[in-house]
Amino acid sequence: MNQKDIYVKNMPLGEAKEKWHNALQEINFYHGAKVKEIEVEKALGRITGAPVFAGHSSPAYNAAAMDGIAVHFADLASASDAAPVRLGPTQFKAVNTGNSLPQEFDAVVMIEDVHYINENEVELAIPATPWQHVRTIGEDIVATELILPEGHTIRPIDQGAMLATGVTRVFVKVPPKVLVIPTGSELIQPGTPPAPGQIIEFNSRILAGTLNEWGAVATGAKPISDDKEQLRDAISKAVKENDIVVMNAGASAGTRDYTSTVLAELGEVVVHGVATKPGKPVILAIVDNTPVIGLPGYPVSAILTMRIFVHEMIYDFMDMKMPPTQWATARMSRPMHSAMGVDEFVRITLGQVGDELMATPAGKGAGAVMSLVRADGILTLKAGSEGVGAGEEVEIELLRPLTDVQSTLVAIGSHDNIIDVLANLLHKGRKTIRISSAHVGSMGGIMAIRRGEAHLAGSHLLDEETGEYNISFIKRFLPDVPLQLINLCYRQQGLIVAKGNPLKIKGFEDVAKNKYSFINRQNGAGTRLLTDKTLRDMNIDPTTINGYEHEEYTHMSVAASIANGSVNCGMGILAAANALNLDFVPVAEERYDLIIPKEFLNDLKIKTLLDVIRNNSEFQKLVLALGGYNLRDSGNIMYEQ
Amino acid sequence: MNQKDIYVKNMPLGEAKEKWHNALQEINFYHGAKVKEIEVEKALGRITGAPVFAGHSSPAYNAAAMDGIAVHFADLASASDAAPVRLGPTQFKAVNTGNSLPQEFDAVVMIEDVHYINENEVELAIPATPWQHVRTIGEDIVATELILPEGHTIRPIDQGAMLATGVTRVFVKVPPKVLVIPTGSELIQPGTPPAPGQIIEFNSRILAGTLNEWGAVATGAKPISDDKEQLRDAISKAVKENDIVVMNAGASAGTRDYTSTVLAELGEVVVHGVATKPGKPVILAIVDNTPVIGLPGYPVSAILTMRIFVHEMIYDFMDMKMPPTQWATARMSRPMHSAMGVDEFVRITLGQVGDELMATPAGKGAGAVMSLVRADGILTLKAGSEGVGAGEEVEIELLRPLTDVQSTLVAIGSHDNIIDVLANLLHKGRKTIRISSAHVGSMGGIMAIRRGEAHLAGSHLLDEETGEYNISFIKRFLPDVPLQLINLCYRQQGLIVAKGNPLKIKGFEDVAKNKYSFINRQNGAGTRLLTDKTLRDMNIDPTTINGYEHEEYTHMSVAASIANGSVNCGMGILAAANALNLDFVPVAEERYDLIIPKEFLNDLKIKTLLDVIRNNSEFQKLVLALGGYNLRDSGNIMYEQ
Repeated sequence: MNQKDIYVKNMPLGEAKEKWHNALQEINFYHGAKVKEIEVEKALGRITGAPVFAGHSSPAYNAAAMDGIAVHFADLASASDAAPVRLGPTQFKAVNTGNSLPQEFDAVVMIEDVHYINENEVELAIPATPWQHVRTIGEDIVATELILPEGHTIRPIDQGAMLATGVTRVFVKVPPKVLVIPTGSELIQPGTPPAPGQIIEFNSRILAGTLNEWGAVATGAKPISDDKEQLRDAISKAVKENDIVVMNAGASAGTRDYTSTVLAELGEVVVHGVATKPGKPVILAIVDNTPVIGLPGYPVSAILTMRIFVHEMIYDFMDMKMPPTQWATARMSRPMHSAMGVDEFVRITLGQVGDELMATPAGKGAGAVMSLVRADGILTLKAGSEGVGAGEEVEIELLRPLTDVQSTLVAIGSHDNIIDVLANLLHKGRKTIRISSAHVGSMGGIMAIRRGEAHLAGSHLLDEETGEYNISFIKRFLPDVPLQLINLCYRQQGLIVAKGNPLKIKGFEDVAKNKYSFINRQNGAGTRLLTDKTLRDMNIDPTTINGYEHEEYTHMSVAASIANGSVNCGMGILAAANALNLDFVPVAEERYDLIIPKEFLNDLKIKTLLDVIRNNSEFQKLVLALGGYNLRDSGNIMYEQ
Repeated sequence: MNQKDIYVKNMPLGEAKEKWHNALQEINFYHGAKVKEIEVEKALGRITGAPVFAGHSSPAYNAAAMDGIAVHFADLASASDAAPVRLGPTQFKAVNTGNSLPQEFDAVVMIEDVHYINENEVELAIPATPWQHVRTIGEDIVATELILPEGHTIRPIDQGAMLATGVTRVFVKVPPKVLVIPTGSELIQPGTPPAPGQIIEFNSRILAGTLNEWGAVATGAKPISDDKEQLRDAISKAVKENDIVVMNAGASAGTRDYTSTVLAELGEVVVHGVATKPGKPVILAIVDNTPVIGLPGYPVSAILTMRIFVHEMIYDFMDMKMPPTQWATARMSRPMHSAMGVDEFVRITLGQVGDELMATPAGKGAGAVMSLVRADGILTLKAGSEGVGAGEEVEIELLRPLTDVQSTLVAIGSHDNIIDVLANLLHKGRKTIRISSAHVGSMGGIMAIRRGEAHLAGSHLLDEETGEYNISFIKRFLPDVPLQLINLCYRQQGLIVAKGNPLKIKGFEDVAKNKYSFINRQNGAGTRLLTDKTLRDMNIDPTTINGYEHEEYTHMSVAASIANGSVNCGMGILAAANALNLDFVPVAEERYDLIIPKEFLNDLKIKTLLDVIRNNSEFQKLVLALGGYNLRDSGNIMYEQ
């Protein structure tokens, strides 16, 4: 690794954007889209590259607008109930809707008003007005009139209007062709689990898919290894065949170095390093009059950086206005300190809790794809801002429609695998209620309820003195909140150990004595309380537990560490052990309840949730299949205030 | 034509919907979608048919989150600036971001904090916390955790999350297969201008395209002639191969009869005729356990009826919630009387004029495709309502985003072909300002300004006494409105006649004397005033003009009638004659101005418009190419108050 090259500049975002804008202008990138003629039938969703004018008029002839008879209106001038008028065979002609009106007639009488004497004679009792029930030539549109302006996205109805007036071919803009090139020797294709040091190459799929949603025609290339020559060849070829090239560095520093070096050799690196978080090591270059964007390796950094620099480029190229960003005003549920000197883009989950739209930072790291799957929006903290305080109003750029957010049940608190079961059952079919669950431990859940940030909190806090669960904590921390405490389950807690329990761990005594490596849960987690109580009851000094200070936030991440062999054991629920096919040494059965403020008990989402818990046999079957659960009190109110 | 069959029932919409719902339930149509497994890479936009769980954890191993060195945190417990700690070759290992963390280490120190003494020795001045800068196993997601619930529309980021955790195949719902069958012997394929009585078959394109936008997999079939056997064969085959069959009757009564008769023979007609406008003759039938919907022939009726009965069916079949309808509250610019006893669906154009969102009925007839191209929304007048009054607030179902509506310049008044030129120039590139123009004549435009319904009105009202244009009318009808009268053009008015002027028409005298057929403009049109003044000046009695009572609303529809041979001549502008390659007998040059209330002069849309008129040479070139225009005062203020 070349230590001199590892530092990239920290250019302010505004300056980087301006430099890039100038560079793009120099290569005439703006409205660079060509125009080509295609069949109207294949033009759905395409953007007109020229105005479209009617080829001929529609209707193309005077046509009957009703079923009835064609007449000359003047013949009926005197018609009345008292003195109906009779018309002979030359004075009328039966017409159906859409029929051409014979030249000699100038009105249509609808069939309901026609009294047929015989086939050749009719009697009419109402006068007609000129051209009544006639669709006259060009009534809808006249030849040469404008149907669609330039820059219009073609809808089915527009196709119909063009075809109706004889336009069968239309000029459309050719969207930019983009190649996404993943780089890095550590990349493997999806389908095999990655060995240590390997990374599944999924970024190019996210990036190309997103570019296509923005209107580009993007494809992902095969990954390029960390080989300067290969990289140089790939870029040289790509810039000849594409309007934009996106490089996605692997996570290794080597790859990043190669990319910037090769780009500097082949063309001009306009920007390398921008003061944004995430996204700092972005490279903006011009090679062979083609923009080449080097995105950071982490998926979240790559996507957010692409949003900043490439989204607009697609519209620039097409000479189109960017679609308006959807914003929502929300209230921060907790303070967010900004990283000084950089523009920071924070993934946010939103929850409509009562009257307030609450915003909670969602991201754990730049590699966390799931944080973007779950994110509802993005909060931008400008360089120079000091961050935002809890309770402060913020503007959130929405990543999903606000209506989806409003049908989201916000669960914050202790994690249990049953939440996933509920999430799926609630989203199934017409219910379409999403669950957004943040795993912050039982105390974290109680605090979230206090801040009005969650509809419900999962909690299993054991009061050492009373032996009761949750109630004393509620009385202490939520004294003024009318709420119900509803049981979800009883569950087995114990030591999760490797398959077959190779170390024959029987309990904490073994762990302390043999210095087996342990993984702990964070402060405020019910499981942490249970661990601490167990250790105290057994007179074991926590500092003698190897790994006591290593904290994870969920049962599943504890289980994952054991499954992977990085630690020998950790405290967690049987369901987590079962999910990863691990063994389990029982320690205790505990109670797990849901804290639900009364103000939400009539919310359709909560009602649906409680209905599933109380009455849905599929739910009960799925939970019992997880193992270690007892539903004897499930849905029962354990306490209310 | 069988007269007995022409009447269809008038079933209230609610009753028809309930009957149809019951019929669909009987054939188990609801959540009838099957589920199939496809590759994740091809699943973009598809809807999950089962929950998706992580195949393996991500990260799959403890990984360095930074470039730097892997260490054991305990070795650095005492490190400080005053007493840095040195680590030997076995105590650290260089790692790059993404590298697997060797089992013996439990933290990463970033390269910026590492002082290399030599290749085998480093010096560190800051302590480390356990697992710092390490992405631990399953930090993003743990094997078996829920990634996506059932019924979720797959986005690029979701594909990434699945691939990241080893999921390469996913169960998705199979959308309903729909065949749209156009019927009617009068139908011809797009590409040749229709002869009298022929109709271009474009409906199936609009209908199939719309169904696809709703999530179906729809295709259009070849049209079936009005032949009972062919129709029977086509339907029998279609119901076997599709989940939904949509019949689109030609406009002729004969066709409609065949469809209902054949459907009754093959299966059960559940509903025939619903009290809606448009859409009355809809047929809802079940054939061979497959829903068959017979839509009316007119495109507007067909589309609106499909929205009522078929849109929801797609979601029913997929067991999905309908996407929420977008609504806007608007103020009616004019009264709208409802057709008693039917649910009426009114096409509406919207205009953000000042603070008010104004709604104006847009449709001229069920055949008017352009009215739907132009429509911004739909107003529903329930059966039993008495309609809405001018100025009343109404809820409009939006057909395009409100932001598009807000960037629309509302021009109501006299028609001039220059409006089309402006519409295209204003929509081009980044400007993206739409012009919604309603052609209601000069007086109609003045009234629209008075009602606060338009940003501008085109007007060419000649005051017979003063010889001045527009000003006396403004003083009379808009005395209290601060406004500017800005000239757009001078233009030639005259008699539009057939190519080569075969009748050698020299003027109105010829027309009156020889009883040549004439087509007039409506009351309140500037051209009508000019016609009337000309006739008066020439002492010609209007009733001697053959066709004086036949009114059209635009120059172009006048020209179209002449081009088609239905009338000999009509009064209009040279540009209209030129557009349709007709001849022109000049009568007078007149002034055409824009009336713009002062409150809109600072509106970006108006400013852009005036800038184009005053300074855009392309505009001037295009207008002069139309013929008959003089721009000597174009953009000048002729009067203000």
